[in-house]
Amino acid sequence: MCRKSLSTLFLILFGAISIHSQTLLSPGKNLELTFQLSPKGAPIYSVKIGGEPIIQPSSLGFDLKNDEIDLLDGFVISQTATSTIDETWTPVWGEENQIRNHANELMVELTQSQTGRKMILRFRAFDEGVGFRYEFPLQEKMGYFVIKEEKSQFAMTGDHTAFWIPGDYDTQEYDFTESKLSEIRGLMKTAITPNASQTPFSDTGVQTALMMKSADGWYINLHEAALIDYPAMHLELDDQAMVFTSHLTPDAVGDKGYLYTPTQTPWRTIIASKNAGDVLASRITYNLNEPSKIENTTWIKPMKYVGVWWEMITGKSSWSYTNDFKAIKLGETDYSKATPNRTHGATTANVKKYIDFAAKHGFDGVLVEGWNVGWEDWFGNSKDYVFDFLTPYPDFDLKGIAEYAREKGVKMIMHHETSSSVRNYERHMDKAYQLMKDYGYPAVKSGYVGDMIPRGEYHYSQWLVNHYQYAIEKAAEYELMVNAHEAVRPTGVARTWPNLIGNESARGTEYQAFGGSKANHVTILPFTRQIGGPMDYTPGVFEMDVYNGSHVNSTLANQLALYVTLYSPLQMAADFPENYDRFPDAFQFIKDVALDWEKSLYLEAEPGYYVTIARKAKGSGEWFVGNVNGFEGRTGMVKFDFLEEGKTYLAEIYADKSDAHFKTNPQSYEIKKMAVDAKSVLKQFSAPGGGYAIRIRAASKEDLKGIKKLKS
Amino acid sequence: MCRKSLSTLFLILFGAISIHSQTLLSPGKNLELTFQLSPKGAPIYSVKIGGEPIIQPSSLGFDLKNDEIDLLDGFVISQTATSTIDETWTPVWGEENQIRNHANELMVELTQSQTGRKMILRFRAFDEGVGFRYEFPLQEKMGYFVIKEEKSQFAMTGDHTAFWIPGDYDTQEYDFTESKLSEIRGLMKTAITPNASQTPFSDTGVQTALMMKSADGWYINLHEAALIDYPAMHLELDDQAMVFTSHLTPDAVGDKGYLYTPTQTPWRTIIASKNAGDVLASRITYNLNEPSKIENTTWIKPMKYVGVWWEMITGKSSWSYTNDFKAIKLGETDYSKATPNRTHGATTANVKKYIDFAAKHGFDGVLVEGWNVGWEDWFGNSKDYVFDFLTPYPDFDLKGIAEYAREKGVKMIMHHETSSSVRNYERHMDKAYQLMKDYGYPAVKSGYVGDMIPRGEYHYSQWLVNHYQYAIEKAAEYELMVNAHEAVRPTGVARTWPNLIGNESARGTEYQAFGGSKANHVTILPFTRQIGGPMDYTPGVFEMDVYNGSHVNSTLANQLALYVTLYSPLQMAADFPENYDRFPDAFQFIKDVALDWEKSLYLEAEPGYYVTIARKAKGSGEWFVGNVNGFEGRTGMVKFDFLEEGKTYLAEIYADKSDAHFKTNPQSYEIKKMAVDAKSVLKQFSAPGGGYAIRIRAASKEDLKGIKKLKS
Repeated sequence: MCRKSLSTLFLILFGAISIHSQTLLSPGKNLELTFQLSPKGAPIYSVKIGGEPIIQPSSLGFDLKNDEIDLLDGFVISQTATSTIDETWTPVWGEENQIRNHANELMVELTQSQTGRKMILRFRAFDEGVGFRYEFPLQEKMGYFVIKEEKSQFAMTGDHTAFWIPGDYDTQEYDFTESKLSEIRGLMKTAITPNASQTPFSDTGVQTALMMKSADGWYINLHEAALIDYPAMHLELDDQAMVFTSHLTPDAVGDKGYLYTPTQTPWRTIIASKNAGDVLASRITYNLNEPSKIENTTWIKPMKYVGVWWEMITGKSSWSYTNDFKAIKLGETDYSKATPNRTHGATTANVKKYIDFAAKHGFDGVLVEGWNVGWEDWFGNSKDYVFDFLTPYPDFDLKGIAEYAREKGVKMIMHHETSSSVRNYERHMDKAYQLMKDYGYPAVKSGYVGDMIPRGEYHYSQWLVNHYQYAIEKAAEYELMVNAHEAVRPTGVARTWPNLIGNESARGTEYQAFGGSKANHVTILPFTRQIGGPMDYTPGVFEMDVYNGSHVNSTLANQLALYVTLYSPLQMAADFPENYDRFPDAFQFIKDVALDWEKSLYLEAEPGYYVTIARKAKGSGEWFVGNVNGFEGRTGMVKFDFLEEGKTYLAEIYADKSDAHFKTNPQSYEIKKMAVDAKSVLKQFSAPGGGYAIRIRAASKEDLKGIKKLKS
Repeated sequence: MCRKSLSTLFLILFGAISIHSQTLLSPGKNLELTFQLSPKGAPIYSVKIGGEPIIQPSSLGFDLKNDEIDLLDGFVISQTATSTIDETWTPVWGEENQIRNHANELMVELTQSQTGRKMILRFRAFDEGVGFRYEFPLQEKMGYFVIKEEKSQFAMTGDHTAFWIPGDYDTQEYDFTESKLSEIRGLMKTAITPNASQTPFSDTGVQTALMMKSADGWYINLHEAALIDYPAMHLELDDQAMVFTSHLTPDAVGDKGYLYTPTQTPWRTIIASKNAGDVLASRITYNLNEPSKIENTTWIKPMKYVGVWWEMITGKSSWSYTNDFKAIKLGETDYSKATPNRTHGATTANVKKYIDFAAKHGFDGVLVEGWNVGWEDWFGNSKDYVFDFLTPYPDFDLKGIAEYAREKGVKMIMHHETSSSVRNYERHMDKAYQLMKDYGYPAVKSGYVGDMIPRGEYHYSQWLVNHYQYAIEKAAEYELMVNAHEAVRPTGVARTWPNLIGNESARGTEYQAFGGSKANHVTILPFTRQIGGPMDYTPGVFEMDVYNGSHVNSTLANQLALYVTLYSPLQMAADFPENYDRFPDAFQFIKDVALDWEKSLYLEAEPGYYVTIARKAKGSGEWFVGNVNGFEGRTGMVKFDFLEEGKTYLAEIYADKSDAHFKTNPQSYEIKKMAVDAKSVLKQFSAPGGGYAIRIRAASKEDLKGIKKLKS
């Protein structure tokens, strides 16, 4: 659809635009946001960057449930104010050690003439994008209200290319589809692959963070920030007009948010640049969240970990202890008399093997899944009292393991699978967290697999968003870190609650054992899932043909690169110790790579095709570079001009060999050592589904003896 | 409908009955239960007493949600067993100090031929009725299952007279309607009066305990016992066939129970006698519950109490502290800066007045509602974080009041209104109970006013039944007593958890301030609501024309009688201290009446018309007699043959004067002192909506000097 017809449509939708408009420029003045009321008093905004339209005039408002008059039009502007925000803050962990929050703000207070209700629109213009939210001050005319639907529009300028997953109230664990917006409808059915809990809702509904690319080269990202006690937002596409409208996750009775004044929505974010790397570099999502509410953060520490997990995922061992029972009654079923199934992974002996491995190779932690009773019937039964989070299996020596780990200098990572029975989890939460304190577990991986209890609720409804937040805040009371899987996607809340050190909320490595993910999946995640915060992707698989016959669509070098490209303060080395023992030279990179960064540079970026990132480690000053590559082989280029002038460094390059391929030859890699300086340029091949990883450290001449210099 | 046509219908429904049947006789052999399978293998039972049919052949079973084959027919009897239960147990509190549980039991194990599933029917035949339940043993062919509907039939023998309230998933606070079964449909609309949360579901659905009377003089009661983690049962009437079928309370998605083996349903109970008093004397409901799970019960003590409550109910004062705020954000709203509304009831000064009054008159406790922040917007807003159960209003000195009460020898009763936001309550429960311990509150009145959160759930669904039980069990951990209002009706669970000392779960005295209840209401409650356990009815209103203009449809003498007729270990004197000061002679009865009983005798009983009960107090050996009367004046007769032969007693009779009337002259009462012995007979008038109350104690000749002797 051409731009002209879109404009025509706009005129049809809103009538002639009022000439009274407010304009907000970003600090660098390149971005311009315009706000105006339509002749009917509907709020309209649009965004341009460098004079080029990014968001066409788009309306804002709400359908309300119990009120006769919605919050869509009939508004007058009763007050406006502008201000500038310029602060620099220090994250507890992250991709850089200082984050600047620099934006101009426009506050528009609207009053609805007929009702007297006041609704504030607050816009923040950053140089690389916009955030806006609705605010409802405490007021006589508005106390409690129920949202039928939020009607925030994002009118595109054309039929962009999008990297999308199906809109779904219960899962985000889909492979991304690259298509024109106009093609979404036709591809939706194919895109909806099976999941343990899923509720897609429309033929053109997609999830955020949504990454797009326009025909004229704009990279545009739509997401939300500071999702607190409000349903998660999806985007419903009008694929004639190319207009997205917000679509909130409903509750069990179809309502979409219970609010009361004073209150506000999450921020809706638009990031746009002609350089895809700027989207990755943007900190808009964090900047729109509140500063940390945790005062003492010394207990929050990034962790590199191994765990008893991949062996269950690949079917080699089981979470469950016995096959004796058709159904388990916690507290009544007598496990001590049960026949062990001999496949149970979380045995004391096996856990000690992982602890030994972690200690030997300098890992911080060991995760153990399947340690607690209840795994025999945990899934698919809508079982309320499914786990107690307290009672270990007979073959898991909770106390002995805690002592052994402490002796070895390794921290245990707790696992709380809830089976989506969230009332049950909340009932046990205090005692479960206290158990962690008692046995020295600093972090918990929680899980929400399967359909929700309370039945009828969805993973991303207000009820659950409230729950995930409750778990984070209660964990903070106990000084515990949280890594929540199958929870709602992150929206930068980790700025406010930095003990939220990880989330899954996308298709993780486990799907490589469930039939495989697309080979370019990891080139899209940084532009989508990771806009909101770190992902516990669990990389590091070295043996691509796994126990159950599934194939991991990735080269080994690509797996190494993920430790750099998919930022997370919590990084797993997911594969078995014995597979790392087979490739000790490659494993060295996983041991060496840092977890926390002073600076990050987004050297090359094209969603779906490649991402190359350089990061400087906090403390050591070492640099690491990672490149992940899509379906086609590619030779990229890295300029080392980020290195200190005049110094020479040793670069250890872990790369695909020329014959490597994610499908047919994933373990074909080579490790090269080269001397580099700020003038060096690396041309490096990445195989299909491949990539490379580089460690760069300051080196003396002694160190570099016999090492070839990389050309400038 | 005549019996003949009912039998014909039965033949149509089930075809010819199999001749293979099992018969179970009660210990006294008067009651006969017959079990058989229909030719299609459907389980059928029927009940006769003294050879007369009470329950016509009725089928049993379940519609299942996810299974292709229901649990309705296709069964064979794979095993049967009979046994006898004869135990006598001692309740912690109650209408008598020893309860005999004497029944014969028939266990029928059914196997469904096509599926191999096993379902056990367990029948218990008592002399005055029957209990039966379904059991599902742990078995290979049956693990998890979801109930679409329970299909337990209760086929009546005719168009009985019933005392019914509308079937409703959310409330039982209805006035009873007396009508023929066939008239229910036509009267349903009128019967459904407004409530803060209500979900009636059918034109012929009614609630249990349902009281009926047949044309030939049978009093028949249908209810359930031991409702644990299962939806509450309603009864859906086929008003052609006069057959009730169970109708369970659904959850938010319409399902009616998530179960897994080994499991069982609550007991379904049928009590029947030609003497209505036998229904009141029956202990079937308690006997079908498990023995106490609380080992040390010394902390469970009956309480007589006053409270800051009736003044809010009648509109004289408010629960809320201020009118300043449109909406309250707990933890953020600054009450210290709010303007007091000057109507707040729970002020320190007012509470001390009640403590003084309680101490002066020998009451055990003082209840205070509206003590904690959040009452400004607690109702009707579906507010999740509505109360914290911890923070007192600025004018309620939690610590000072606790100390003052302790000095005066009075216990404080806590109040936890949840506003039906049950997740919020559970989140705060531990701390709220701990607060009670810290300040010496031995009991809590909890409330569930308004629609449920989680939204879509109902007050009587499995989710909520599970919650109420959770609250009771957690309170027991803290050694606290629970009196839950708006919770599911009791089903004898107080035998197992005797800290459940009260429930509302019916139309209580508060409705007398909301326009009034029917004058015969209290003559029906013992046959309906109280079959499952004690009710916190909050009697003792002396001033019938209340502050807001509503009129209490009761005479003052009737109010006194309630302390005897409506058994409860928790008895309030609901009216204002100043109203008791106006009638000190009548108030003396409330001060004197016992709370806990050695023995109870049901002297006269006719639901809807009159109930006369005599009870012997534990310890003191005093007797109390209460009579409550319906719409028409009546002179009843009490034989004092329950008194010890040869002893003379002093009887203090609090009775309506001849001109008393609930509407026009409720405060017309007289107090007579008379000497009585085992041969005495009292003919006593009770006014419309009236009654009388008698205290009887052993007396010396000295005591009786000048006291007239009641004739034999």
